[in-house]
Amino acid sequence: MAKRILGIDPGLVHTGWAVIESAGAARAFIASGVILPRANEDLAARLSHIFTEVGKLCETFEPDECAIEITFVNKNPTTTLLLGHARAAAIVAVANNDIPISEYEPNKVKKALTSAGHADKAQVDAMVKILLPGARPKTADESDAIAIALCHANHSRLKI
Amino acid sequence: MAKRILGIDPGLVHTGWAVIESAGAARAFIASGVILPRANEDLAARLSHIFTEVGKLCETFEPDECAIEITFVNKNPTTTLLLGHARAAAIVAVANNDIPISEYEPNKVKKALTSAGHADKAQVDAMVKILLPGARPKTADESDAIAIALCHANHSRLKI
Repeated sequence: MAKRILGIDPGLVHTGWAVIESAGAARAFIASGVILPRANEDLAARLSHIFTEVGKLCETFEPDECAIEITFVNKNPTTTLLLGHARAAAIVAVANNDIPISEYEPNKVKKALTSAGHADKAQVDAMVKILLPGARPKTADESDAIAIALCHANHSRLKI
Repeated sequence: MAKRILGIDPGLVHTGWAVIESAGAARAFIASGVILPRANEDLAARLSHIFTEVGKLCETFEPDECAIEITFVNKNPTTTLLLGHARAAAIVAVANNDIPISEYEPNKVKKALTSAGHADKAQVDAMVKILLPGARPKTADESDAIAIALCHANHSRLKI
């Protein structure tokens, strides 16, 4: 049975999203895009914007499952903290729609696509287009969201 | 005119909250409590729980304004990141109810109460009970939430 997966690459400035369908080894591209809070919005308005738009995606595409990257503390902990806020806004929207959400480490997402845990954005983008020929991601955020959804599809398949 | 203020001290384990009323120099305690996600809940369920409960507080008490502490990256950035998630879930709930939200640095909150930027929890608790005699906070999280609401009340007054 085909399963619909929503992949999310959260961020306060750009939140990439993608919906794919997975049935056995087959994958199909459904849609992708980027949520862009207005530049002059404050933190609360940005988070509310992400929450509202992710909620709309859940209602529009009715995904069975959702996948999102795990955020790690990197060189800039303050940026990571803000990213965590954006991530939480997306997670709350998904959880509010009773959609189970899985978390994947960034390296796992890259490895699922390129067999290298440290692929750069261009490599991820190229592999996404090969693995999912219907996909036309316009931005790196969309490619990442597709990669997360593909990672989840592969991972679920492995589990079975 | 009396203004109703919701103070929030967010956390993944305990989210303290308090509602006070402020009119000129007068302050009145309305209610306080702690949101406790179940111990076995995963991150998504905890965030959804905080979001839902803060939303209910907004509907029940109809605050005019909300105040929350700014989270800084401390010695443990991973804990801070998780705290940021809890904070975002609360902020989204407040923003969704069209309630303006103000952020205060922890030292500013303590200074508003004790004239010392580094007061400990016991000092904050003692000052909360003196400044707001009607308040009976049962936990440090409730005291902190009351302190945040009082800080906002004083700050708004200063602004006028």
